[in-house]
Amino acid sequence: MAKANIGDRVKITTKDDVFEGILMPHPTLSKSNTTIIKMYTGYNAGIDNKIIKKVEVLDKYTTPKEKKAEKFKENKKLPKILVLHTGGTIASKVDYATGGVIAKFSAKDLIELVPELKNIANIKTELVSNMMSEDIKFTDYTKIINAIKKNKEKFDGIIVGHGTDTLAYTSAGLAFALQNIEIPVLLVGSQRSPDRGSSDAAMNLICAAQFIKNSKYNGVAVCMHHTTEDDVCAIINGTKARKMHTSRRDAFKAINDTPIALVDKKGKIEYLKEVKKTKDKFACKNKFSDNVGLLKVHPNIDNKLFEFMCKNYKAIVIEGTGLGHAPTNTKDNEKNYQTLIKFIKKGGIVAITSQCLYGRVHPDVYTNLRRLSSIGCVFCEDMIPETAYIKLCWLFGNYKNKEEVKRLLSTNLVGEINKRILE
Amino acid sequence: MAKANIGDRVKITTKDDVFEGILMPHPTLSKSNTTIIKMYTGYNAGIDNKIIKKVEVLDKYTTPKEKKAEKFKENKKLPKILVLHTGGTIASKVDYATGGVIAKFSAKDLIELVPELKNIANIKTELVSNMMSEDIKFTDYTKIINAIKKNKEKFDGIIVGHGTDTLAYTSAGLAFALQNIEIPVLLVGSQRSPDRGSSDAAMNLICAAQFIKNSKYNGVAVCMHHTTEDDVCAIINGTKARKMHTSRRDAFKAINDTPIALVDKKGKIEYLKEVKKTKDKFACKNKFSDNVGLLKVHPNIDNKLFEFMCKNYKAIVIEGTGLGHAPTNTKDNEKNYQTLIKFIKKGGIVAITSQCLYGRVHPDVYTNLRRLSSIGCVFCEDMIPETAYIKLCWLFGNYKNKEEVKRLLSTNLVGEINKRILE
Repeated sequence: MAKANIGDRVKITTKDDVFEGILMPHPTLSKSNTTIIKMYTGYNAGIDNKIIKKVEVLDKYTTPKEKKAEKFKENKKLPKILVLHTGGTIASKVDYATGGVIAKFSAKDLIELVPELKNIANIKTELVSNMMSEDIKFTDYTKIINAIKKNKEKFDGIIVGHGTDTLAYTSAGLAFALQNIEIPVLLVGSQRSPDRGSSDAAMNLICAAQFIKNSKYNGVAVCMHHTTEDDVCAIINGTKARKMHTSRRDAFKAINDTPIALVDKKGKIEYLKEVKKTKDKFACKNKFSDNVGLLKVHPNIDNKLFEFMCKNYKAIVIEGTGLGHAPTNTKDNEKNYQTLIKFIKKGGIVAITSQCLYGRVHPDVYTNLRRLSSIGCVFCEDMIPETAYIKLCWLFGNYKNKEEVKRLLSTNLVGEINKRILE
Repeated sequence: MAKANIGDRVKITTKDDVFEGILMPHPTLSKSNTTIIKMYTGYNAGIDNKIIKKVEVLDKYTTPKEKKAEKFKENKKLPKILVLHTGGTIASKVDYATGGVIAKFSAKDLIELVPELKNIANIKTELVSNMMSEDIKFTDYTKIINAIKKNKEKFDGIIVGHGTDTLAYTSAGLAFALQNIEIPVLLVGSQRSPDRGSSDAAMNLICAAQFIKNSKYNGVAVCMHHTTEDDVCAIINGTKARKMHTSRRDAFKAINDTPIALVDKKGKIEYLKEVKKTKDKFACKNKFSDNVGLLKVHPNIDNKLFEFMCKNYKAIVIEGTGLGHAPTNTKDNEKNYQTLIKFIKKGGIVAITSQCLYGRVHPDVYTNLRRLSSIGCVFCEDMIPETAYIKLCWLFGNYKNKEEVKRLLSTNLVGEINKRILE
């Protein structure tokens, strides 16, 4: 074992198997009698040292040389695209210090990774932040929004590279904040890191650039794999996208909506919805309030939690069951109902959504729904809970009048609510 | 308007339209200058009184006569099925007092509604409770479980009629509580009430009875429409089902699993998984703890909420983002990490699941995942958050040793965790 170092490509022979991959360091607190390698699939394998018969070093690890940056030469025939970099898998590589993957690439590296982009557009990049998206906060939204606002006149479209974990939350935030923006703003992530053969990073970026180049669309949307094949990407309204799989490349789905369009790497676009340039004036409202809570209900939920939410926030989004129910009707659950009544009387706002995700909540099919609507709960139509949460944070950040916040909450602003169609 | 009463079938003519339906009372607090009718589609229409030109009464409402109960005559050739009734849409009819739908039918009425059942099996019914499922609590689980335990020797299978809102939570609870039960226990609900032409109540019940009659399956499963057509129902493992649409008849999906089988009204079964009778001994563990919280993370989530959950519960299920992330890594979010560390050190259990629903969480693909696994968070594989919540409540109810609870949490007990397949 002595001659193999972290980062070396090794071949490990055990009694029954042969493993090839990159030698990884031990994660903190894990068993030390195990050798960990990152296999070519991108997955890690832990091998008990006791069964290892032989370790061969196939390639010594060498620190990669810095490539010299190519100069940005403008091709007048091609559109101009700005790639804003915020971090995430789309810009990550193996971190040999811990054996995982961390956000590390610079925006410049991102373009070097996908040279095809240069033939589609004049690409410029800008680093906004560099973090995995699970930690992104509203202060980061404001940074991204301001970078877009500052640059939107100079470019034909903007790509926001983003971690996939909370990409759909951010896309909703951007969609509300950048109303009637004159250019396409596409959020692009990657479900598999660029060091894996199955990475979707390059195709998602190429399709986004092609869509900006070849479409008349303006607004905020997500551009990610539509299927598990490398055939087309889906362009999904920023308020209707949701990450629906932990690892598949086609994880992003349009919920209660169809994608706006499908686009391939060559720039062929199939529109699934009508796309028309809006003539309304651009308005940037970039504030988000911290005063909103998200409460997912479930059997045996505690009144303490209802009380906590109503005490600590000015508004709560209830992720109800079915058509928008909450446990508020039986003798046991009456306390929850009383908590909501008190909260609304004091000026609190309660938004009703459904944990089903698909479908629409309804204020009066069942008696128990009417009990909620009669006390002033706002039923959020076919908006997913995550978008309702972001919308309410945004409404509270930018509007002072509570009645207006309530009215706008259930009004379609940027495609987050589709008209009801009787089934 | 004077001559039309609540419950009458009426024809309302306006300048532009003609509406037919049942005259409904006004919901509390709604505008009183509107006439509301329930149309034949089952949906309500509100018509502004100002535009109404004519109201005709087509049928006067009459209180339905009590039908005499048919006597339970046993056909020795047919299997015996017990239908336990807990409430929900499957047993509801229009409630003329409020114009909505409330749980009302007795178990006896349920059978009268679907006479086909008599030709499939000897049906007996028992009323366990009568409530819409959003309010069901663990005390109700115990009642259902005890009714099943008491009757399982006397019947070839048991159908549990249940509201759809929390049907999948209950099915998970029953699956954990009734390990190795010798007969099939099928949870059946209805997305459209039996007073609507498009109701799925009858077919779901018939398919459940046929599956009990014609299959060798034993265990707890859900039986609901597989498609929007009235062709087949899916039998889904009780721990893998989730309601994925607010109103569609095919709302229940097998998440990270395939249905066990598809079954039609004539009893034709297509198995999608291997079904083998378990030889292990039946064990009834019917306790559920109140000491578990469910925490769905999202951008800008507050440390106050982490603190609240860790203070008030012995265990929490984190509905993380992506592969099981939580905002615990940046300077801003470090507080959340410290809260979890303190909680686990004091003996708290943290279960990690994903709000993506589809796919599997992973303890070490990314550095930030390793930060969670290194402090002792339990990664729950491909279990959906709702099942992880119910499982943890059940584990805490029936096992005293915390290390055993942690070990069992990430161990497959009744099909809630599928083996990992490298993609």
